[in-house]
Amino acid sequence: MDLATIIGLFLAVSLVGYAMLSGGGGNAFIDTQSVLIVIGGGVASAMVSVSLTNFKRIGKVFSKALFHKEQSAQKLIQDLVGYAEIARRDGILSLENATKDADDPFIIKGIQMAVDGTDPELIEQIMNNELEAITERHDNGKAIFDALGRYAPAYGMIGTLVGLILMLRSMDDPASLGPNMAVALITTLYGALLANMFALPIADKLAARNNEELLMKTIIIKGVMSIQSGDNPRIVEQKLKTFLPPSLRGAEQEEER
Amino acid sequence: MDLATIIGLFLAVSLVGYAMLSGGGGNAFIDTQSVLIVIGGGVASAMVSVSLTNFKRIGKVFSKALFHKEQSAQKLIQDLVGYAEIARRDGILSLENATKDADDPFIIKGIQMAVDGTDPELIEQIMNNELEAITERHDNGKAIFDALGRYAPAYGMIGTLVGLILMLRSMDDPASLGPNMAVALITTLYGALLANMFALPIADKLAARNNEELLMKTIIIKGVMSIQSGDNPRIVEQKLKTFLPPSLRGAEQEEER
Amino acid sequence: MDLATIIGLFLAVSLVGYAMLSGGGGNAFIDTQSVLIVIGGGVASAMVSVSLTNFKRIGKVFSKALFHKEQSAQKLIQDLVGYAEIARRDGILSLENATKDADDPFIIKGIQMAVDGTDPELIEQIMNNELEAITERHDNGKAIFDALGRYAPAYGMIGTLVGLILMLRSMDDPASLGPNMAVALITTLYGALLANMFALPIADKLAARNNEELLMKTIIIKGVMSIQSGDNPRIVEQKLKTFLPPSLRGAEQEEER
Amino acid sequence: MDLATIIGLFLAVSLVGYAMLSGGGGNAFIDTQSVLIVIGGGVASAMVSVSLTNFKRIGKVFSKALFHKEQSAQKLIQDLVGYAEIARRDGILSLENATKDADDPFIIKGIQMAVDGTDPELIEQIMNNELEAITERHDNGKAIFDALGRYAPAYGMIGTLVGLILMLRSMDDPASLGPNMAVALITTLYGALLANMFALPIADKLAARNNEELLMKTIIIKGVMSIQSGDNPRIVEQKLKTFLPPSLRGAEQEEER
Amino acid sequence: MDLATIIGLFLAVSLVGYAMLSGGGGNAFIDTQSVLIVIGGGVASAMVSVSLTNFKRIGKVFSKALFHKEQSAQKLIQDLVGYAEIARRDGILSLENATKDADDPFIIKGIQMAVDGTDPELIEQIMNNELEAITERHDNGKAIFDALGRYAPAYGMIGTLVGLILMLRSMDDPASLGPNMAVALITTLYGALLANMFALPIADKLAARNNEELLMKTIIIKGVMSIQSGDNPRIVEQKLKTFLPPSLRGAEQEEER
Repeated sequence: MDLATIIGLFLAVSLVGYAMLSGGGGNAFIDTQSVLIVIGGGVASAMVSVSLTNFKRIGKVFSKALFHKEQSAQKLIQDLVGYAEIARRDGILSLENATKDADDPFIIKGIQMAVDGTDPELIEQIMNNELEAITERHDNGKAIFDALGRYAPAYGMIGTLVGLILMLRSMDDPASLGPNMAVALITTLYGALLANMFALPIADKLAARNNEELLMKTIIIKGVMSIQSGDNPRIVEQKLKTFLPPSLRGAEQEEER
Repeated sequence: MDLATIIGLFLAVSLVGYAMLSGGGGNAFIDTQSVLIVIGGGVASAMVSVSLTNFKRIGKVFSKALFHKEQSAQKLIQDLVGYAEIARRDGILSLENATKDADDPFIIKGIQMAVDGTDPELIEQIMNNELEAITERHDNGKAIFDALGRYAPAYGMIGTLVGLILMLRSMDDPASLGPNMAVALITTLYGALLANMFALPIADKLAARNNEELLMKTIIIKGVMSIQSGDNPRIVEQKLKTFLPPSLRGAEQEEER
Repeated sequence: MDLATIIGLFLAVSLVGYAMLSGGGGNAFIDTQSVLIVIGGGVASAMVSVSLTNFKRIGKVFSKALFHKEQSAQKLIQDLVGYAEIARRDGILSLENATKDADDPFIIKGIQMAVDGTDPELIEQIMNNELEAITERHDNGKAIFDALGRYAPAYGMIGTLVGLILMLRSMDDPASLGPNMAVALITTLYGALLANMFALPIADKLAARNNEELLMKTIIIKGVMSIQSGDNPRIVEQKLKTFLPPSLRGAEQEEER
Repeated sequence: MDLATIIGLFLAVSLVGYAMLSGGGGNAFIDTQSVLIVIGGGVASAMVSVSLTNFKRIGKVFSKALFHKEQSAQKLIQDLVGYAEIARRDGILSLENATKDADDPFIIKGIQMAVDGTDPELIEQIMNNELEAITERHDNGKAIFDALGRYAPAYGMIGTLVGLILMLRSMDDPASLGPNMAVALITTLYGALLANMFALPIADKLAARNNEELLMKTIIIKGVMSIQSGDNPRIVEQKLKTFLPPSLRGAEQEEER
Repeated sequence: MDLATIIGLFLAVSLVGYAMLSGGGGNAFIDTQSVLIVIGGGVASAMVSVSLTNFKRIGKVFSKALFHKEQSAQKLIQDLVGYAEIARRDGILSLENATKDADDPFIIKGIQMAVDGTDPELIEQIMNNELEAITERHDNGKAIFDALGRYAPAYGMIGTLVGLILMLRSMDDPASLGPNMAVALITTLYGALLANMFALPIADKLAARNNEELLMKTIIIKGVMSIQSGDNPRIVEQKLKTFLPPSLRGAEQEEER
């Protein structure tokens, strides 16, 4: 559960909603046609932008932004150092059992290859391939929200232009000018909300998630390679802890004393 | 047939068209002069932007965005693993026949070079050259739609400025102000539609297509190099499956058991 | 003669000009002061942006965008394969005569170094240096048009602001409001035209030209290196044809059969 | 204490505040609802954009931009050359004591590894890992302010649109038009202030800080590697002084004579 | 003296100034408060953006854009070839005297290291370090003008919003509406002028200067390395002339005949 995403979305919706309601009744801001043109148009152009396979993943990608649990790099490093100690003590083959319940299948796969005696270069190549493939998939997921963030405001402007042109053509009744203009502006508002409250921050979050996950996978790769080459557990720890901010390295200092 | 592109375009046109019609008769939005200035001007500046050879490919490139069939990476990997098994069993020369009906001429070319005993480095170099040349061609195709996406809104603004200046010069009849303004805004609307409903999403799609095709070609290159070096079919499979998302790797797990 | 540039510019000017004239007499769009502030200001800031030497090349660079002839990569590859055949048959020294009339001095220089027995690495280094220097020069040429494309609209806005401020200060005569506003908007129009009809598409075209020329030079470098190392003409052809789109490689297939 | 940040922020706030007050009483610019929508919305979307861990660091990151002391590269180089002299004179082991009070724990860590006889390649790898991890953390810190700088103006526009729509719906009382419009514009003003006076310059400063710190760390890495390999102190100095602007290298020339 | 910068700035100021004066008295465009908010605010935020050390260099950096003399690459190459000839004829040690009066201290430093028998790799490393440090310093100098170019228009908009809000609150006197609006727009005008007439073109020029200087330094590095390795002066010349445009290589062709 990604609290920041959920709290942030809830907060943004509440604040804007409150401003709308306190200003005199929210139905001033509800217009079915505008919903159709902005959300429909934005989604349609996002659909043209990406491949169909990719587009269908939108729900899965979104739920990832909402529910993905932040992993602890500290815990991961601790686990990997633990495996290094086991490998040192009982031989690398004993890792097959030890990693059976590892949190990340990526660890299991890497250790399995090390246990199988796969060539270290091949292990690194296969794991790096996988890393690139993960980034590629994440980029594809982010692309849908990026597209929505670009096209929603554009359709907002298109809707407002359509409304303005219709309004300007028949300005016989000056009293209707204001309300008509208000309706015309609603699509611009919808476009701005869809992009800035939803699509763009989600795209940012997906990019941040990707960076975190790459860090985790990179730590795993370095750890597996280090274990495979028979490094001393202390060296493994020293190498991997460089990925942590100094404030989280406390354990290391204590152990070293 | 790229369903996402066709559905997306159809949806976007329908939604905007419906908004126009429901607002009081679509002929408010038809103005020949505006079509000329926005589409004509946008196409003219796009023509200046790219080379003539490139510009002439616009139809071909567009039909690619519309009709290109998504290829299955799974099927491709299966085929390549199949070739690896044949090479292992019957010798690499037997691949000449086996690949005769391969879906992608790129496979045929690569395998042919391997069969001819071409130096592995030369094979890789030639195939990578081809990859770069493909990206170069795709970038050129995308460039036309990028240019259209940039210049169409600019000509929309130019048309509106021309209309505004003409209108402001003779404001004798206040009643004509609104309709004249409406006409002036039509070019801005056309520019926004041409760019956001058509040119930019198509350019995005072409970029996505390019990424997909590069992935396919990269899988082929890795596969051919792996076959050429006599790798065990299981290793070939393991290497290539890293390009697939975990959810599509099921077959591998089963075979491995 | 670059037809795309000339047709494109002519078309854009005609369409916008027609819109202006048909709207009621073109003199509404002619204002000397506005020309001075937009073109003068844009050129002045472009001059500050680049070096003087570079600025003086503006005419030469522009004529390149207008008159440069597209070269044929096919023809070039044919020539290089021809040289490879001569080198194979009569020895590399015989190339000195054969390349005397080559279209591109870059070929002559490369072959000359190969004939002189210059070290292959040195040949490649010198030719690559030259390639980088060409790109550097092209970037410098493009920079002027980029600057014009950025500063012309800015001066357009500056001119409009000056006009608006003057107009707003003395609004005694409401009748003069419209025409004054029209004049104020003319600089914005000029800025948009100078940038989008002229400067930016020309900058795009110069970038496209650079890519084409780099492709040609890269083919030449690969060809010369391949000839120098005594490659079989068929290998030379195979290597170089990867730079062509498949549709232009027909000759190869036929020859191979 | 970063004087530039503090003076700059104070100056900007004073100048804008003075303009507001001198224009007729500052309470025209205070509107609780607008504060909620712009600051609340901007912060909410920034929260969605980054990870929760990262978001919580906002105060720490901000205080870094305010209070971080600029380090002197000259002093650092002097220290490192001093260590090189000690290592030359008394052996590398004597550095353990000498660096005990070094300003930067990064020096202590590097020298410690050199004293421990760690493999030079491993030292460099560990220190470079740390460098990358620092940049990663800095980028994360900067990301919050970047997000605020992007979303605050967006919520400013959203607030203005909400205000405009409410105003346009009930234009019965023309006298209230102006004041209502003024209130609607306040959110746009808040968004522009939050972004341009605060978030974006702070993000710039964090980037500049990161560059400075990377320079320091790079000097330390080069220094430690040079000391570890037993370089002559003069060579160490010559290598490191290339990182200084010529005007700060005076000492070198004098020593060399 | 950089004529392009000085002529360009003078021209831009004259043209805009003339437009202001001819429109009816320049005092319409002078407003102390607006100067304070735009220039003061822009400078304040630029100060927050960069480090204090860097900010203090603004005058020095600006004078560089104004007064820096363009160096001749031709002359430089001629000098370096001359040194190569001396080294060939009289031994490399004789270069110590010959380069005493070289225009660029960078040449003296490089040749000095070659004369001292410093290891070639170390020479190249030290000179490349210096090159990177120069670029770093130039980037820092450019950053101040980039910041000014971004924040000045932002404060222009902030000033206009403040003016508009004040104006809209008290619209009792319709006659004052125009003049008040005019005053509000002045800050937008100032922001556009400061950015587009001054800050951004100067930043562009600094980038162009940096490129020129890097080219010179790169020629020097290649020249020194070539001289150090005892290359034939003709080879030195051939290598270095690739950095010149073909039109400036005349001398080479003549000498070669």
